[in-house]
Amino acid sequence: MVGKRSSRDIRSESRLDVLHGLLSAGTSTRNELAQTTGLSVATVATIVQELRGEGLVVDAGSSALGAGRPTTMLRVNGERGRILGIDVAETYVRAIVFDASLEEVGSVEVPMDESLPSASSVTESIVRAVDTALRETAIDRERVLGAGIALPGLVSAEESADAVAPRWAARNVEVLRQLRQRIGLPLVVENPLKAIATAELWFGRGRTASSMVIANLGTGVGAGIVLEGKILRGATHSAGEWGHAVLVLDGRACRCGRRGCVEAYVGAPGIQLTLREIAPEHELADAAQRDFIEGLASAHRKSGGDPVIEEVLSRTAHYLGVALGDLAAIIDPEVLMLTGWTAWALGDDLVEPTKQELQRRAPVGATTPIDLGVSTVRGSSVAIGMATLAFERFLGDVGLSTTRLPLAL
Amino acid sequence: MVGKRSSRDIRSESRLDVLHGLLSAGTSTRNELAQTTGLSVATVATIVQELRGEGLVVDAGSSALGAGRPTTMLRVNGERGRILGIDVAETYVRAIVFDASLEEVGSVEVPMDESLPSASSVTESIVRAVDTALRETAIDRERVLGAGIALPGLVSAEESADAVAPRWAARNVEVLRQLRQRIGLPLVVENPLKAIATAELWFGRGRTASSMVIANLGTGVGAGIVLEGKILRGATHSAGEWGHAVLVLDGRACRCGRRGCVEAYVGAPGIQLTLREIAPEHELADAAQRDFIEGLASAHRKSGGDPVIEEVLSRTAHYLGVALGDLAAIIDPEVLMLTGWTAWALGDDLVEPTKQELQRRAPVGATTPIDLGVSTVRGSSVAIGMATLAFERFLGDVGLSTTRLPLAL
Repeated sequence: MVGKRSSRDIRSESRLDVLHGLLSAGTSTRNELAQTTGLSVATVATIVQELRGEGLVVDAGSSALGAGRPTTMLRVNGERGRILGIDVAETYVRAIVFDASLEEVGSVEVPMDESLPSASSVTESIVRAVDTALRETAIDRERVLGAGIALPGLVSAEESADAVAPRWAARNVEVLRQLRQRIGLPLVVENPLKAIATAELWFGRGRTASSMVIANLGTGVGAGIVLEGKILRGATHSAGEWGHAVLVLDGRACRCGRRGCVEAYVGAPGIQLTLREIAPEHELADAAQRDFIEGLASAHRKSGGDPVIEEVLSRTAHYLGVALGDLAAIIDPEVLMLTGWTAWALGDDLVEPTKQELQRRAPVGATTPIDLGVSTVRGSSVAIGMATLAFERFLGDVGLSTTRLPLAL
Repeated sequence: MVGKRSSRDIRSESRLDVLHGLLSAGTSTRNELAQTTGLSVATVATIVQELRGEGLVVDAGSSALGAGRPTTMLRVNGERGRILGIDVAETYVRAIVFDASLEEVGSVEVPMDESLPSASSVTESIVRAVDTALRETAIDRERVLGAGIALPGLVSAEESADAVAPRWAARNVEVLRQLRQRIGLPLVVENPLKAIATAELWFGRGRTASSMVIANLGTGVGAGIVLEGKILRGATHSAGEWGHAVLVLDGRACRCGRRGCVEAYVGAPGIQLTLREIAPEHELADAAQRDFIEGLASAHRKSGGDPVIEEVLSRTAHYLGVALGDLAAIIDPEVLMLTGWTAWALGDDLVEPTKQELQRRAPVGATTPIDLGVSTVRGSSVAIGMATLAFERFLGDVGLSTTRLPLAL
């Protein structure tokens, strides 16, 4: 049977809730944690004792506020060890070192050859990023509790190719095999969309929303889906491939080989194509992707306003509003979030008109306003999410969690 | 906190699993039920005792097969009472009477004025359908364990209008208020998509699939989504409104007031519009909806073959394949099912080309074949699903389940 949970699972979820509450608050008392988590004070006390036993939670002084006797403040013990979050993108590998309270300690970025790197060169880049990161932050490998690696196209790890990162998937099996031999750390591997959703779940709006869709806007486009506090993984580990849903039947060619995909309109290259359709000679028409998006944002914020820029933003908001509306109609989440460098750069310049488009498309007379915003988890939400997943695996390894993990190597 | 389950919930799910196993098998021994449900024989025995205590399960003779002593066969006691499943459609109200083993005992259909019936006339039709059904099957109201009513546009029960059944929603609040006063039975109200998913979960592919999307094709179009054996309801109770996702940006006008919706292409009127676009003078161009779909199916099956009909089916499979592909990309379900009178009438004539379209759109090199089929739950899956939900509510009322119910009145 499927979807059963034993009381053991519930217990380990309570442990995650307590840690989660403590990470969010920074420091907290047992009573406060009981309030945040909805657990009894007695349960919180038991769990805190277990976490202290593993050195994960330590005292952080005492609070003398209020009339009663001072109560002990607690915090997560960052010095318990280090965790690596690794974002393997199409053109770079970024490795971020976190302490055990998931604060960033340092990071390195290793470029990767964009033109079809082999499995070995991908592994090599990852290994180099890990080694460099550990060396630069002066961390012994023994102090690393685990590493989480986000690999695009993981879905097709067992297949010969992949629609989303077509140049990627065939190699993933081989990359995984090589990593297992070379990294020498407890590993967790996940797809970047799930990493982003995890980051949002632990550190963003996901902390308070019961369900959430988080759309990632960058070169590629995809969505992380969180339902009842859990990430939707899907039967073949590929849920959330919204970027290749059809927006325009038989429309623009998409790099996945099909036509009319959402990504072909709201991915950064898609937005640039919209500009080229309107004004092929525009000065931003041939800019590099990130320069183009930054240029779009700064041009929009200048007074006067370039009508071409306004038209690009307006069409993009139309495309994005329709595509997000479809996602919202199917999932019906409490909260819709945008993330990724395109979303961060454009911010409200994109969110506000998109919200209006969503509102126009909402059921006639619906009074619940669309809850759309830009994620507050910045930097590398992929790496943050992967470090969190590696941390969850560590908790499992020391017997503090039985949460089912993504591909643990 | 959200998404918590106590051991009490797990216990009541085990009870549902045992009932579920018994309903599927017809008759079964405790050992067989332990195998089907994955529960221990001891747990099954305890649950069977509780269910027998409520008169829901009775002996069905003994099995002398095998070497050991004969073991008692069990079955659900249909005579424990009656359950009503009520499908409130746009043009009729159908009330089906089931026994407690969810076998159909009788049914009535009451027509409804298609032109904007008032809340009172909707209530009136429902009350009349219930009264007639009980009278015709000679059932005392006291023997009815509960009634489940599927109301379209339930999502906007608190709103002034609704995109999916625009002529409907404003009245639902009032209909609910009046029903509460007039029906005099334990009531459960749900939206038809969730009713269909429930029927598939108890009696169709949902019994064995861990996740499933079931698309309903009729006048309207929508999807029921089942994840980890549970129906996805959504934050505002409107998940699965796939019929109003965009298939063609700024495309055909949809009756919801927007453009390019999936429903405008694969709802029965949409399919007929495709035919009119190809051959406005065709003999099926102005047929009534159901006659049109039946005509399409029988014309296709005739030898020789009308090229117009073939083109209609081919375009419809293209539209449907793309739209289902998007749903599958977002949810990544184990199984995709089609249901509703259009799906039943066209069957493989539609499923096979749609499957090919889905396969064409699948990630390059993906080797997992698309599991697409037509539901084996026929007749009125909406009414069957609603009766099942009413049965679940009854189990809750007698303390055998704590499953969270949809709007229980």
